[in-house]
Amino acid sequence: MIINVHQHFMELALKEAKQAQAEDEVPIGAVVVSHSRVIAKAYNQVERLKDPTAHAEMLAITSATNVLGSKYLTDCAIYVTIEPCMMCATALFWSKIGAVYYAAGDNRYGFTHFDRHIFNDTTHVEKGLLEHDCGQLMKDFFKKKRELDKL
Amino acid sequence: MIINVHQHFMELALKEAKQAQAEDEVPIGAVVVSHSRVIAKAYNQVERLKDPTAHAEMLAITSATNVLGSKYLTDCAIYVTIEPCMMCATALFWSKIGAVYYAAGDNRYGFTHFDRHIFNDTTHVEKGLLEHDCGQLMKDFFKKKRELDKL
Repeated sequence: MIINVHQHFMELALKEAKQAQAEDEVPIGAVVVSHSRVIAKAYNQVERLKDPTAHAEMLAITSATNVLGSKYLTDCAIYVTIEPCMMCATALFWSKIGAVYYAAGDNRYGFTHFDRHIFNDTTHVEKGLLEHDCGQLMKDFFKKKRELDKL
Repeated sequence: MIINVHQHFMELALKEAKQAQAEDEVPIGAVVVSHSRVIAKAYNQVERLKDPTAHAEMLAITSATNVLGSKYLTDCAIYVTIEPCMMCATALFWSKIGAVYYAAGDNRYGFTHFDRHIFNDTTHVEKGLLEHDCGQLMKDFFKKKRELDKL
């Protein structure tokens, strides 16, 4: 059996997103991988922590730098289920992370909707792993929210 | 004696920046004010925490939301000594903060150098309080760093 390692790591990020969903948080998850080892996992906790900065990526970056004892994540990759916003994209820029894999785009807040390129040229950026599953989780979440708002 | 309250709060932010300088951190400080009361103070701690997300504004936002028990800072103002980067500006956007006062511009990483407007239309944004003092602190810091690098 051929295992796609990138898909495997995105599946772990999706698992984090599902945990966010279970806690009624916007369902976004992230994992940070260093030399094929998961060193940080996180899901969005804005509601629980009542902190607008507690996006999955931010928590994962802080956790990963704690593990490595370094403010840089040069040899790391992050797998995140939704396109990072500019807060998270800029945090990833500051971290000098090696690669950013995100599953589904975010047409409203995603970093690609800003004109100026944000990442370092040495950062590999790739979209599309498990795009449907990760995107659908968000669509279902907001659809349910809208239905509840109507009640 | 007429006291300029905005200047007073920026002086507190500058005091935070000087604390950062004393700890050999990039000298940026921030305070968050709610109804004329300081509810959070912070300075850049990227080196100490080895965390690229530990900018003064981020720490101040998290601290302020903790104090208020709310993920929104709608009735608050932040006073920060240097123009926020896009990470911090977007975090302030997510927080729905009422006002952003920054002292000196950042020609390289400042949010104004991105084409797309980031703040909510209801957020008052103003530059220039104690601009010289806050900017000079940064200039002196990096000048010293460059001189040390030459040794």
